[in-house]
Amino acid sequence: MASAHALASAAEARRTPVDATRVPRFAGPATFARLPELDDVGRADVAVLGVPFDAGTSYRPGARFGPQHVRASSKLLRPYNPVMGLAPFDVQQVADAGDIACNPFVIDEAVREIEAGARAVLDHAGRLITIGGDHTIALPLLRLAHDQRGPVAVLHFDAHLDTWDSYFGSPVTHGTPFRRASEEGLVDKTASIHVGVRGPLYSAVDLQDDAVLGFQVIGGHQLDDLGVAGALDQILRRVGTAPVYVSIDIDVLDPACAPGTGTPEPGGLTSRELLRLLRGLAGLDIVGADIVEVAPAYDHAELTGLAAAHAAYELLSVMAPQEPVS
Amino acid sequence: MASAHALASAAEARRTPVDATRVPRFAGPATFARLPELDDVGRADVAVLGVPFDAGTSYRPGARFGPQHVRASSKLLRPYNPVMGLAPFDVQQVADAGDIACNPFVIDEAVREIEAGARAVLDHAGRLITIGGDHTIALPLLRLAHDQRGPVAVLHFDAHLDTWDSYFGSPVTHGTPFRRASEEGLVDKTASIHVGVRGPLYSAVDLQDDAVLGFQVIGGHQLDDLGVAGALDQILRRVGTAPVYVSIDIDVLDPACAPGTGTPEPGGLTSRELLRLLRGLAGLDIVGADIVEVAPAYDHAELTGLAAAHAAYELLSVMAPQEPVS
Amino acid sequence: MASAHALASAAEARRTPVDATRVPRFAGPATFARLPELDDVGRADVAVLGVPFDAGTSYRPGARFGPQHVRASSKLLRPYNPVMGLAPFDVQQVADAGDIACNPFVIDEAVREIEAGARAVLDHAGRLITIGGDHTIALPLLRLAHDQRGPVAVLHFDAHLDTWDSYFGSPVTHGTPFRRASEEGLVDKTASIHVGVRGPLYSAVDLQDDAVLGFQVIGGHQLDDLGVAGALDQILRRVGTAPVYVSIDIDVLDPACAPGTGTPEPGGLTSRELLRLLRGLAGLDIVGADIVEVAPAYDHAELTGLAAAHAAYELLSVMAPQEPVS
Amino acid sequence: MASAHALASAAEARRTPVDATRVPRFAGPATFARLPELDDVGRADVAVLGVPFDAGTSYRPGARFGPQHVRASSKLLRPYNPVMGLAPFDVQQVADAGDIACNPFVIDEAVREIEAGARAVLDHAGRLITIGGDHTIALPLLRLAHDQRGPVAVLHFDAHLDTWDSYFGSPVTHGTPFRRASEEGLVDKTASIHVGVRGPLYSAVDLQDDAVLGFQVIGGHQLDDLGVAGALDQILRRVGTAPVYVSIDIDVLDPACAPGTGTPEPGGLTSRELLRLLRGLAGLDIVGADIVEVAPAYDHAELTGLAAAHAAYELLSVMAPQEPVS
Amino acid sequence: MASAHALASAAEARRTPVDATRVPRFAGPATFARLPELDDVGRADVAVLGVPFDAGTSYRPGARFGPQHVRASSKLLRPYNPVMGLAPFDVQQVADAGDIACNPFVIDEAVREIEAGARAVLDHAGRLITIGGDHTIALPLLRLAHDQRGPVAVLHFDAHLDTWDSYFGSPVTHGTPFRRASEEGLVDKTASIHVGVRGPLYSAVDLQDDAVLGFQVIGGHQLDDLGVAGALDQILRRVGTAPVYVSIDIDVLDPACAPGTGTPEPGGLTSRELLRLLRGLAGLDIVGADIVEVAPAYDHAELTGLAAAHAAYELLSVMAPQEPVS
Amino acid sequence: MASAHALASAAEARRTPVDATRVPRFAGPATFARLPELDDVGRADVAVLGVPFDAGTSYRPGARFGPQHVRASSKLLRPYNPVMGLAPFDVQQVADAGDIACNPFVIDEAVREIEAGARAVLDHAGRLITIGGDHTIALPLLRLAHDQRGPVAVLHFDAHLDTWDSYFGSPVTHGTPFRRASEEGLVDKTASIHVGVRGPLYSAVDLQDDAVLGFQVIGGHQLDDLGVAGALDQILRRVGTAPVYVSIDIDVLDPACAPGTGTPEPGGLTSRELLRLLRGLAGLDIVGADIVEVAPAYDHAELTGLAAAHAAYELLSVMAPQEPVS
Repeated sequence: MASAHALASAAEARRTPVDATRVPRFAGPATFARLPELDDVGRADVAVLGVPFDAGTSYRPGARFGPQHVRASSKLLRPYNPVMGLAPFDVQQVADAGDIACNPFVIDEAVREIEAGARAVLDHAGRLITIGGDHTIALPLLRLAHDQRGPVAVLHFDAHLDTWDSYFGSPVTHGTPFRRASEEGLVDKTASIHVGVRGPLYSAVDLQDDAVLGFQVIGGHQLDDLGVAGALDQILRRVGTAPVYVSIDIDVLDPACAPGTGTPEPGGLTSRELLRLLRGLAGLDIVGADIVEVAPAYDHAELTGLAAAHAAYELLSVMAPQEPVS
Repeated sequence: MASAHALASAAEARRTPVDATRVPRFAGPATFARLPELDDVGRADVAVLGVPFDAGTSYRPGARFGPQHVRASSKLLRPYNPVMGLAPFDVQQVADAGDIACNPFVIDEAVREIEAGARAVLDHAGRLITIGGDHTIALPLLRLAHDQRGPVAVLHFDAHLDTWDSYFGSPVTHGTPFRRASEEGLVDKTASIHVGVRGPLYSAVDLQDDAVLGFQVIGGHQLDDLGVAGALDQILRRVGTAPVYVSIDIDVLDPACAPGTGTPEPGGLTSRELLRLLRGLAGLDIVGADIVEVAPAYDHAELTGLAAAHAAYELLSVMAPQEPVS
Repeated sequence: MASAHALASAAEARRTPVDATRVPRFAGPATFARLPELDDVGRADVAVLGVPFDAGTSYRPGARFGPQHVRASSKLLRPYNPVMGLAPFDVQQVADAGDIACNPFVIDEAVREIEAGARAVLDHAGRLITIGGDHTIALPLLRLAHDQRGPVAVLHFDAHLDTWDSYFGSPVTHGTPFRRASEEGLVDKTASIHVGVRGPLYSAVDLQDDAVLGFQVIGGHQLDDLGVAGALDQILRRVGTAPVYVSIDIDVLDPACAPGTGTPEPGGLTSRELLRLLRGLAGLDIVGADIVEVAPAYDHAELTGLAAAHAAYELLSVMAPQEPVS
Repeated sequence: MASAHALASAAEARRTPVDATRVPRFAGPATFARLPELDDVGRADVAVLGVPFDAGTSYRPGARFGPQHVRASSKLLRPYNPVMGLAPFDVQQVADAGDIACNPFVIDEAVREIEAGARAVLDHAGRLITIGGDHTIALPLLRLAHDQRGPVAVLHFDAHLDTWDSYFGSPVTHGTPFRRASEEGLVDKTASIHVGVRGPLYSAVDLQDDAVLGFQVIGGHQLDDLGVAGALDQILRRVGTAPVYVSIDIDVLDPACAPGTGTPEPGGLTSRELLRLLRGLAGLDIVGADIVEVAPAYDHAELTGLAAAHAAYELLSVMAPQEPVS
Repeated sequence: MASAHALASAAEARRTPVDATRVPRFAGPATFARLPELDDVGRADVAVLGVPFDAGTSYRPGARFGPQHVRASSKLLRPYNPVMGLAPFDVQQVADAGDIACNPFVIDEAVREIEAGARAVLDHAGRLITIGGDHTIALPLLRLAHDQRGPVAVLHFDAHLDTWDSYFGSPVTHGTPFRRASEEGLVDKTASIHVGVRGPLYSAVDLQDDAVLGFQVIGGHQLDDLGVAGALDQILRRVGTAPVYVSIDIDVLDPACAPGTGTPEPGGLTSRELLRLLRGLAGLDIVGADIVEVAPAYDHAELTGLAAAHAAYELLSVMAPQEPVS
Repeated sequence: MASAHALASAAEARRTPVDATRVPRFAGPATFARLPELDDVGRADVAVLGVPFDAGTSYRPGARFGPQHVRASSKLLRPYNPVMGLAPFDVQQVADAGDIACNPFVIDEAVREIEAGARAVLDHAGRLITIGGDHTIALPLLRLAHDQRGPVAVLHFDAHLDTWDSYFGSPVTHGTPFRRASEEGLVDKTASIHVGVRGPLYSAVDLQDDAVLGFQVIGGHQLDDLGVAGALDQILRRVGTAPVYVSIDIDVLDPACAPGTGTPEPGGLTSRELLRLLRGLAGLDIVGADIVEVAPAYDHAELTGLAAAHAAYELLSVMAPQEPVS
């Protein structure tokens, strides 16, 4: 376990979340995990950024309210991650960069605005964890990742492939970001993988195309037999040392764990499985990450928001400098 | 009160809703009021048409699920309207024309498809009552109305003016249909009126523009003092004998009566007031009508769907041939 | 206003609800208004009796859970009715008689059991306020009322006439109690009245039959113009000095006020109107009363349960000895 | 994996669900999986049939709304089942046969009507997947299955045995279908099995009787240790080559996965387990199937409806001709 | 109507809410009405201040989440109030002062912290509109008001008197603030009034005590007959020219309009009535105001939050400089 | 399996729950599992006791409504536990002792009242299963347990350690009972263990302190790998033959299984796991037990209440005399 003393002193130079022993969790700022705003810290190692956009949604809309819901659901996050043995807000500066204001009606324009907006945040932050919004937003974020690092492995947690071609003539929607990204050369085709895919497809061709686009698949139905350890082993072998972009569609979880989403598919992961998988990513070269498709109007008691907030917390933990265990 | 005997014989030639004494209301077809489908009757006096489109929504989305929700909420409608003294499904053929399938991502294309789709239905129907969808759909429907009758009076029940100019550069959204319609010459500027408008505006200019575009306003806050009779009197004087298009945004109702909508405004009409206002429209030359902005994800116990279904029923009643009272 | 002193001394001999200043309202007994059980007091002036039966329901079922929901919603009732100027639990002994256990599958058997069960309670209570359950239960209760007093005026608050003839061959359902009662001679045809009826009917004949069965009608749509005072005047003139049975289908309220019910109809009464109408019944010769059709699965935040509990409280107040105002 | 080409050509002769790339999933028909109606295809290999009946329910009612809820929840089903390697709507004609209209008040009459109604559908369909309604409906459906094939194995997924004797004197309710069926000789006592049973019973005799009636039991609490593979092995050994009727009470799932049901029992299967178990039934001689006890008033965000719709989809897949994998 | 030109120029010097035509309402800051934070403007004419405290609640708790819920529900507020003819954020600087962090467990300590916290905000703001929190918070706020202006008229909108004496020995709870305030001499006993009181009381003495403490009462049941104009007339006559503190318990609204509250009472005001009453307060010498008892766990679709947000907006409008109508 | 005959005769002397074949489960008493009240049986082996107190809650309040919610959710519990092979209400007298009425505002006073109230119940009962209320109530209950048996092993199922020191200066809240208990010497430090702990902590010191206070930890994330059997093995080894107090915070379950709680943490146990763990406690020397933190306002379809009621049932089963299997 990491030295609490060392972490505490490291944190002294950092602005950390509001202290819950002085400001009750139901009071205080509406930022993610009650973190400082990026404007207030000037520069962050990791910025949490909202992208409230859902015009690319094909079924239940409402992920436009995802960022504020995930933030509201993140108030219970405490500073120390006991399984990882570190305090993710202490060992790196994390801050909330607010929301990108993008066009709610025209997908192409919004995609440009998201790319520009995220790029501007990256002037003040090392890396981003983006809270969607629908999955359309992964495309501009992968463009940015590519600009920084070249083709990146995509580690994609989702019930769906999201490599469909187009929908009603629109090439960029929440069902297509990884096809577009692969076509644009943003994706490392030797190191990308979907985890948790399940449910019916349009045809057998979907999977053939998907493989050509550079993805392996761990199906949701395989989790019982593989176990978390087996799935993690396959993920880590696939991703290897490539720079990796982690994209989490909250519908990778079973609808029981994440009812508040746009295209739910029964038979998914438990939140216990997802959080354990994410903890296993420590040591990967994570370029950036997103958590998308939280649609609060279908949520209950913040179930979905809590799952997303904790997923972000685990991502922040594995993106943190992993200190040697004392 | 109309002669029940005469109505019954008139109805013999017609296909009416499924009989609830033989098929329980929780069984049977999913059409509006369990009516026959338009395809099955060939031609209808009035067709009920779904337009599941909500890409023009600026706040809470989800009106794309409006048509199926209003139909599900319409199963309790019985055949005889005792206040009007007529049976609206007997004295005219009413049928459900299903949904227009339109582009869920690109507003302009959807608007063209709605206009084309509704025009095609009108080849088989005298008039339309359209179930939205968001208020964007009023624009193509007014274009059709204008094609049929020239400029029409717009009798608009809504919490909002919907004569704003543009939003994020998009000229056609759910906040702008009546400005666009007026600019295109579709609106009879001497006979149009908003009813139930309330809540804050962007500026005083909103009302000035609105007047120039041809609308009078009865504010929601005036209903207590005017009463239904006073409001109706003002409406009928304004509309006169002009052909009139009736557009009902369900948010004209107070959120207590219609929680399932996209931009709720406290202080609205009760459903009792709305239904009475609609009954008062008997005798007007109604060209067509819509009921929009039912967003089921925010509804509870079908409150909003029921209100919309009953509004449609009253519209069907006042659009029916008004037989002499025996 | 009644003398508080006199009421207090009168109450000394009585068992009253658990004192909320000693047992918080969220603790303590689950009886109506936290009253004593009938078994514990031996004899009551008025017994509140649950009849959890809903097999006569034609649409949304669930009124079987009505009694426990209304009791849970009654915990906030305090002892003194300031508008009536009396304390209904002080000036008469009120007790909770629990539930009648009746057959959940066979209507006829259940009706017999309800009649027998209620009769047994009347061995220990002067009068009953029955909490349903669906409206089927009014028939056996009217049989009892007739046994006690001969034909009674029926003062019926409801969105529906409930004088239909049969449904799927069943003559006794929640849509028919008052036809059966009238046919059986239980109803005083010169003094009975429906209040709040609205929404579509099967045909004009429904109203004709209803009149023959002995009912006047105040429609829900007439409330705005009549006002509470006007409606009350008509009710009191109709009922006169006849012994009267008061039957309240909670769907007399607008669905906004009572979403948790089986066949909701928009355009109904507000709870303010209903409570005022009930207060106006002081002085009538009330034989008994029921409050039915609370279906909790469709309720939210106890809206419907609260309305029913307060309606029961006002009934208890007008059934109480009306002491001279000091 | 099956040849997509072969499947595609096979499908040409068939009417398949409405194409979601041309009609958005929130538009279009309200049939199961947006399939054609049976009337429109004339004859189907498998018909999906609604039986909206719940008068046999002992606790939370509302399964009468099950068929329309499961249909509404089935709109996301796509045509190709990647785990099974086939397209169930292509390799066989599937159609929606609508609802049986049966008596909502009298169980015996309803049971006769369900048997007659289902028999009439079987004049136009090879096999049925029935959507309930409460579990009472399994009895008439087993009578039909017996008429076709003699005694059948019953593969019964449920939290409860449903072999109780009677309830309030009614021999046919949702807790008794398999006792009645066994007594009538409809059940192959050497090949029947319950899966997922859990929760308290009335007495130890329940299990003794159940064994005599011909059932083995896999308890819900055994799933962790058995695993899906172990449970499946036991199921397949028990059923063997007997013709089998598959009956799925949705309460076999944990309430977390299926809150919308009448008698929920904690400790149940996950939807991932259920779907995997169903996929393992490929190769069995399935005579027919039902999915019952979906009570939408207690559902949230269609969790229960989605689970039921996907269960039906997997049943359709295992009932389909299993083509050789290319 | 006020001169839009004059208002616009006046606003130039002020920081106003985020422009919804550039940042969608579902994006951007979480402040009330998307106003600037008080820290960012330095000094405000009116500060909106959250007090998330509910340890004084006797029934349904949860008002601790009130401030964040009302802020989330305030995003649709636009800048111009057409009924008042002014733009409340333009003609005065309004800012969000965030939340007071107070002890969630010990009432007395929390009350001291609220008084100190609000006093500190008043160093940077002319007046406060406080968002609760339960009604306990009115006591420290009235102490502040008294410090500023001496005894103040209390204009109290509520279903309850809130002048009870103590509860479980605690003299300061959400049921007692106005008794304590009157005893402390904070209340102008010649000018204070409750509006909307209804429902049962503990005894007739409650009203007698209340009168001695300095309050008149307009009962909820009187609203139909008085009308808004009549009630307003009585309010204005009572308050006169006294400095007045306006305290709005959201349960003054009918539960249909405000389900999300702790002690709901049927028979309340509509939101239309409340908003009109508030608009009628223009010209009063308003010292400060609060809106309390919004308990989001019991809200639906932000009904209660919207009502509270609009009430705050109308208060801001009547507290604004009332410019001469052009 | 135990002899049903022997159990039946043993039960003759006992008062058991109301028979569901004579009183439908939706009718009848509101006691836990429809058991008799303690007053009616005089003395019980185990009493189920409600403690509706939640003033020690740091985030979502509402556990004050826990006892009545768990009772309402317990109506489906039948008498025979087939996995344990016994009928827990037959082999021991179980009764419902009602609720302790304690101060809702002042924690210290409430804690004294809870201790006194529970002590009074123990005059008439052998052991207690207490239904909370928040986790604060474990402290007075452990004091009682210590009075009876000296230091006890604490077997604590929870997402949280609940050994924090203080919160806002209050030493006794729902986050601190086990630290206070350990400091007071109530806890057997050699035999106590937390099960299911997960989620972020304040710091690494939390775990260090917790160990010093006498607790081992099985983390929630370890359940997949340990399995129920492995966890149970560790629990039984830790507890050994010590007298043990079992404390179940319902948030030990995943929020999907128990949304209705105050501080939910994703990644928890399934109800299947929890019930199996509890069954494994047969043979332990259980002194008493509690089930806390059920907050109904956040529950859906009684998911959380059902889980709590079944947990209580399994506790009653393992606390029962374990008869030899025939």
